[in-house]
Amino acid sequence: MDRLTNSQDQALRHRAARVVPGGMWGHLHAAKLPEGYPQFFARGEGAYLWDVDGRRFLDFMCSWGPNLLGHQHLEVEEAAERQRRLGDCLNGPAPAMVELAEQLVGLLPHAAWAMFQKNGTDATTTCATIARAATGRRKLLVARGAYHGAVPWCSPSLLGVTSEDRAHLLHYDYNDEASLAAAVDEAGGDLAGILVSAFRHDLGRDQEMPQPGFARAVRAACDAAGAALILDEVRAGFRLDLAGSWEPLGIRPDLCAWSKAIANGHPLAAVTGAEWLRDAASRIFVTGSFWCGAVPMAAAVATLRVAMRDAVPERLAHLGGLLRDGLAAGARRHGLALRQTGPAQMPMVLFADDPGARRGEVFCAAALQRGVYFHPRHNMFLSAAHTEADIALALEAAEHGFAAVAAAG
Amino acid sequence: MDRLTNSQDQALRHRAARVVPGGMWGHLHAAKLPEGYPQFFARGEGAYLWDVDGRRFLDFMCSWGPNLLGHQHLEVEEAAERQRRLGDCLNGPAPAMVELAEQLVGLLPHAAWAMFQKNGTDATTTCATIARAATGRRKLLVARGAYHGAVPWCSPSLLGVTSEDRAHLLHYDYNDEASLAAAVDEAGGDLAGILVSAFRHDLGRDQEMPQPGFARAVRAACDAAGAALILDEVRAGFRLDLAGSWEPLGIRPDLCAWSKAIANGHPLAAVTGAEWLRDAASRIFVTGSFWCGAVPMAAAVATLRVAMRDAVPERLAHLGGLLRDGLAAGARRHGLALRQTGPAQMPMVLFADDPGARRGEVFCAAALQRGVYFHPRHNMFLSAAHTEADIALALEAAEHGFAAVAAAG
Repeated sequence: MDRLTNSQDQALRHRAARVVPGGMWGHLHAAKLPEGYPQFFARGEGAYLWDVDGRRFLDFMCSWGPNLLGHQHLEVEEAAERQRRLGDCLNGPAPAMVELAEQLVGLLPHAAWAMFQKNGTDATTTCATIARAATGRRKLLVARGAYHGAVPWCSPSLLGVTSEDRAHLLHYDYNDEASLAAAVDEAGGDLAGILVSAFRHDLGRDQEMPQPGFARAVRAACDAAGAALILDEVRAGFRLDLAGSWEPLGIRPDLCAWSKAIANGHPLAAVTGAEWLRDAASRIFVTGSFWCGAVPMAAAVATLRVAMRDAVPERLAHLGGLLRDGLAAGARRHGLALRQTGPAQMPMVLFADDPGARRGEVFCAAALQRGVYFHPRHNMFLSAAHTEADIALALEAAEHGFAAVAAAG
Repeated sequence: MDRLTNSQDQALRHRAARVVPGGMWGHLHAAKLPEGYPQFFARGEGAYLWDVDGRRFLDFMCSWGPNLLGHQHLEVEEAAERQRRLGDCLNGPAPAMVELAEQLVGLLPHAAWAMFQKNGTDATTTCATIARAATGRRKLLVARGAYHGAVPWCSPSLLGVTSEDRAHLLHYDYNDEASLAAAVDEAGGDLAGILVSAFRHDLGRDQEMPQPGFARAVRAACDAAGAALILDEVRAGFRLDLAGSWEPLGIRPDLCAWSKAIANGHPLAAVTGAEWLRDAASRIFVTGSFWCGAVPMAAAVATLRVAMRDAVPERLAHLGGLLRDGLAAGARRHGLALRQTGPAQMPMVLFADDPGARRGEVFCAAALQRGVYFHPRHNMFLSAAHTEADIALALEAAEHGFAAVAAAG
């Protein structure tokens, strides 16, 4: 990477280092990416991003999920703008809240009701609180290594977290019925709920779709205990199946946490739930100053309408399949072995025998130089703004990435 | 209230009752307000709101804080729109993040750095995590009855909350140095921080400004223990003093939580901190899908610039003084005794000897019929969009409110 090409990014990083701890926080910190990746972005359009140095990238992170239909999507932005001209943050909700709740209840067979927040963490925390309120019990089962948010009870880091913050978490292994049964036993009569990701999408490792037997076991354990099956759809939601990611398995959750893609980048989260949890959901106290913001709700109504009309999950699966097949063929040509796992709509591309994703970093850095923004160890995301021509362009860049990996040996 | 005049609101409530638990959640639930108050809003402009039945209200809740400069504020919305045309939710922050962090560090004498979130609760939780990470200790002191957010560790409701969620909270009474000292003693060598609201603004009771001796005692206790003084500015921030609400006292916090007014209604929260906490802030893991949204940051830069240029706290204090004096005179004319406490910018108007705020409800319901939106038991908020003519209009409506209270006996 020519240093001159990212001088604006470097200048901003220098300024940020003075006034932001570590220059940036959380999952968007560019220090976790190969050299050459920008920290700061100037704009986005469709499936493309521009950094502050004017470099254009074909993007496969989609803002880490929110960008479902493409940046600056006309119908979504028109709906948002219509609401914005009226008002956003008022003394109560706008009618868009009711429209969106009705739309979700109509869309999701498991859902009798919906309520709204801002962050995915708000949604998972609200689900936990509802499950505990409804059951009068305390234990929550979570999969080892799963990400459900970034507050003390679920943060992937224990720094600044007390052991009491996690006192009532018990762990199982995703897709492992025996470990699930053991955790259920351990919870005994105190099981409030089982929290489970739509599929296994842990950082830096192969993704796993839920095995039907595992999903049935989760459902059965909740039914037997009178506990809540809490499906974390924050990352997967609206990309796999618009009726809910476990609907193809025939397993319906009691509570779902949604965020990211729900409003195509506008800040919104949601909890949807079954009838038996309505009363508890109405009695707990959860709120936020901006949770009733009307613009993100209007954007969500439009986003979901477009996603349904255009069968977006199927489109993403088609594009993801093309990308996956092309990457597999490219790797083979270079004598490299790839591990591509999980749903095609959310590509996870890892190199075999690549601890620390060093080959992945070489691959991504080379692709970035050709204008394609991949991630070496986190699942990626497709948007409906990607085209078959974009996939072809990505595969050309990947060819350079494979060549770089092969050359590095 | 003529039923016909709020038929749209009733219709939306009926629809919401089916798809939202309790029809609404949290602090914006209209069930907590007198009859006649709308649940749903159609639009806002300046200091005025319109409900879905087209009724116009001169508003004194300001979206419960966020609306600092008035709805649809031209300069803020132009800045937001410029950023929006470029992009909002990208793969990393926009330059606006650095501008805003620099602006806050320049504005707030206590601050060496800033980081951003969405909700006030995100900010208070992040402060707690930083304090614990920096000190390696666990205990947090909070004032009895203070509101610091709506997640299990700080929620005003215990429903769905476990005792372990609160295991390391110790309580003191606001403005009570003896109770503070006792809580500090109880924390012993495990004191991570003292969390304190900018002033006492608990629901339904007289507000209290921090007494200088109390503020000094909080600072001294933190200094003696090497603990963090965490000032919760979420509600008060940018209305009392743009350099920080405790700056006039000469007391500087180590960490501040900000949200609500920071971006004039755009969803944003912030934590600012002292140099000694920078390293801990850089090492904890906190994040959210929308925390880097560029539009609210651009809106915040403009909001704070306008607030400084127009000396907004002073303007709000002037308007609040007019309202307070007028209300006091009106009450006297009707032989009623009012308790008006705390900063004039955030009016708390309670009737003497009025448990449950029944008189307050009669007063507010009558004022609402005259087109003025007051709150019977929560502090209110002024915005820079209020004018002296608006205050006069509010006082005319209040006259009807006082008459109604006097008539009710």
